Amino acid sequence: MKKHNFSAGPCILPQEVLKQASKAVLNFNNLDLSLIEISHRSPDFVEVMENARNLVLELLDLKGKGYSALFLQGGASLEFLMTPYNLLKEGGKAAYLDTGTWSSKAIKEAKLLGDIEVISSSKDKNYSYIPKKYSIPTDVDYIHCTSNNTIYGTQMKEFPKTDGILVCDMSSDIFSRKIDFSQFDLIYAGAQKNMGPAGTTLIVVKENILGKTGRQIPSMLDYQIHISKDSMFNTPAVFPVYVSMLTLQWLKDLGGVEAIETINIAKAELLYNEIDNNPLFKGSAAKEDRSNMNITFLLTDDSKKEKFDQMCKDAGINGLKGHRSVGGYRASMYNALPLESVQVLVDLMKKL
Amino acid sequence: MKKHNFSAGPCILPQEVLKQASKAVLNFNNLDLSLIEISHRSPDFVEVMENARNLVLELLDLKGKGYSALFLQGGASLEFLMTPYNLLKEGGKAAYLDTGTWSSKAIKEAKLLGDIEVISSSKDKNYSYIPKKYSIPTDVDYIHCTSNNTIYGTQMKEFPKTDGILVCDMSSDIFSRKIDFSQFDLIYAGAQKNMGPAGTTLIVVKENILGKTGRQIPSMLDYQIHISKDSMFNTPAVFPVYVSMLTLQWLKDLGGVEAIETINIAKAELLYNEIDNNPLFKGSAAKEDRSNMNITFLLTDDSKKEKFDQMCKDAGINGLKGHRSVGGYRASMYNALPLESVQVLVDLMKKL
Repeated sequence: MKKHNFSAGPCILPQEVLKQASKAVLNFNNLDLSLIEISHRSPDFVEVMENARNLVLELLDLKGKGYSALFLQGGASLEFLMTPYNLLKEGGKAAYLDTGTWSSKAIKEAKLLGDIEVISSSKDKNYSYIPKKYSIPTDVDYIHCTSNNTIYGTQMKEFPKTDGILVCDMSSDIFSRKIDFSQFDLIYAGAQKNMGPAGTTLIVVKENILGKTGRQIPSMLDYQIHISKDSMFNTPAVFPVYVSMLTLQWLKDLGGVEAIETINIAKAELLYNEIDNNPLFKGSAAKEDRSNMNITFLLTDDSKKEKFDQMCKDAGINGLKGHRSVGGYRASMYNALPLESVQVLVDLMKKL
Repeated sequence: MKKHNFSAGPCILPQEVLKQASKAVLNFNNLDLSLIEISHRSPDFVEVMENARNLVLELLDLKGKGYSALFLQGGASLEFLMTPYNLLKEGGKAAYLDTGTWSSKAIKEAKLLGDIEVISSSKDKNYSYIPKKYSIPTDVDYIHCTSNNTIYGTQMKEFPKTDGILVCDMSSDIFSRKIDFSQFDLIYAGAQKNMGPAGTTLIVVKENILGKTGRQIPSMLDYQIHISKDSMFNTPAVFPVYVSMLTLQWLKDLGGVEAIETINIAKAELLYNEIDNNPLFKGSAAKEDRSNMNITFLLTDDSKKEKFDQMCKDAGINGLKGHRSVGGYRASMYNALPLESVQVLVDLMKKL
């Protein structure tokens, strides 16, 4: 049965990527060996890592602009710690924008290493909007924001304007839309949304911002060490990196970030139009801050819930349940989700 | 062509595990979804994680003895940091045994957090033996050792006797031999030798040793947080954990650690006998400390090198090149390597 996979992450990946990944687990590059049983120092895998790192910079239009791409482990959760370790001076201060659960977690970890100023928060309305009025302190080592809030269905359209260092957690919308990525000095993202399977984390960092904190950084948390070892300081997560490379190549072949953005806008408009025009549904995020990746919505009539859930199940829809912090439904529509799946969902909403 | 995979890690895994892993990448548990595109909170994956954690404790005979098993990320390299973060008191001291590259790296990271006493080292003879004469200080928070030294081909047969806390990096020989695992309070191991693909790290920890340092531990480095979340504090490395579960199940079906030890001894004896009896070869590690996992050996006549390398290549032997720190050859003979592959290698050595 054909499934329509709206899972919030780990999430849908392109079918052709899954096929190639499955094959590589048995026989990689016709070596008569599995991808997962060869040395990460073998030329075949070194090439995978190099391709993946290059594709990242190419797709984000950051080639030749002083950035390095790394594939590390630990998810965005470990980056919450690595960011201050690498950028926050001893006795220094950083500014964070609090737009949801992941921002809050980032703030919590950073506080262990220094003075953290929360310059604005949308917690007052259960993170249903993106704060826009805030002043940016000039005495901070960096400013941190979260581009898309998976749980609440909000997405930043504008980013803080600053001459200082700007850091962005892009876990749930990287590679989904065209923005000027060079406005950021450090971008990080867990792979398991638009890039690959869980188990690797992408870091894109402008090299000249590093090495300035005066801190002794543990080796595994030190971006400079990972850069100096071409992202192979220790054994990388071979399979997740390989699948990420395949997905990035798939995106490039499709026309890159600009091409996928057009498709993502079409998918989002289709569903938001239905939410706004169907009296049985309503969106939960402020309209101007709505995410094109995670669309959160509620039933206006709870008595229809059982019927709608059954219809979704019968249609092969997976992962539509909303996060417990918001309730209702969440349609996660990452790059690999076809428009056809959104159409199936919208048709059910019309029929309800 | 049938390959004989002596790679030091990532390394050979059981063929039936690879087949099942390959299938799960396309369709997992007949869900019509890939293993790597479903939520880690879905019942199907939660079961994988629970099975994997249970199998670990069962195979190590640690069930009901106060231990927790965790599958985290970052490899042994991150454990070099997590160990002192979790066990070394502020202003405290720990004792380390230095038996090779990995011990040295563990020592380096631990030094960032406190006073580290190296109680003995075999660096004087390029780590070709395991130090045996050392006194164990009683004023330390823990004692750290490395059970097997992949690069140098040595393996500890006896472990420090102590009433204190004993920590062991077992990355390259866990699940390969029967020992009393309850003598350790903390065991860690990167998956990519006897357990699964690179990208997940096994931690087995006695719960009552935790929470006693007085340190503020960053969430991602805190074993207690990971235990409280059943190893799902953040998104785990889904595919590596799944393949580890399959490999652990394969080992259980085979008869467990005791059964594989018998096979591993037979493989090691076959190769060591040839090394000791063939005048063209000699072992590089002290006989009494030889590893059954990584067998390091040298040619006595370098003019034979080209011929031997070509013979190995023609026979489909992979990964036999020694590490640059030792030179010569290294046959890594992890659990999944069949005796047949060792026989192929020994036959070539006889023919040289």
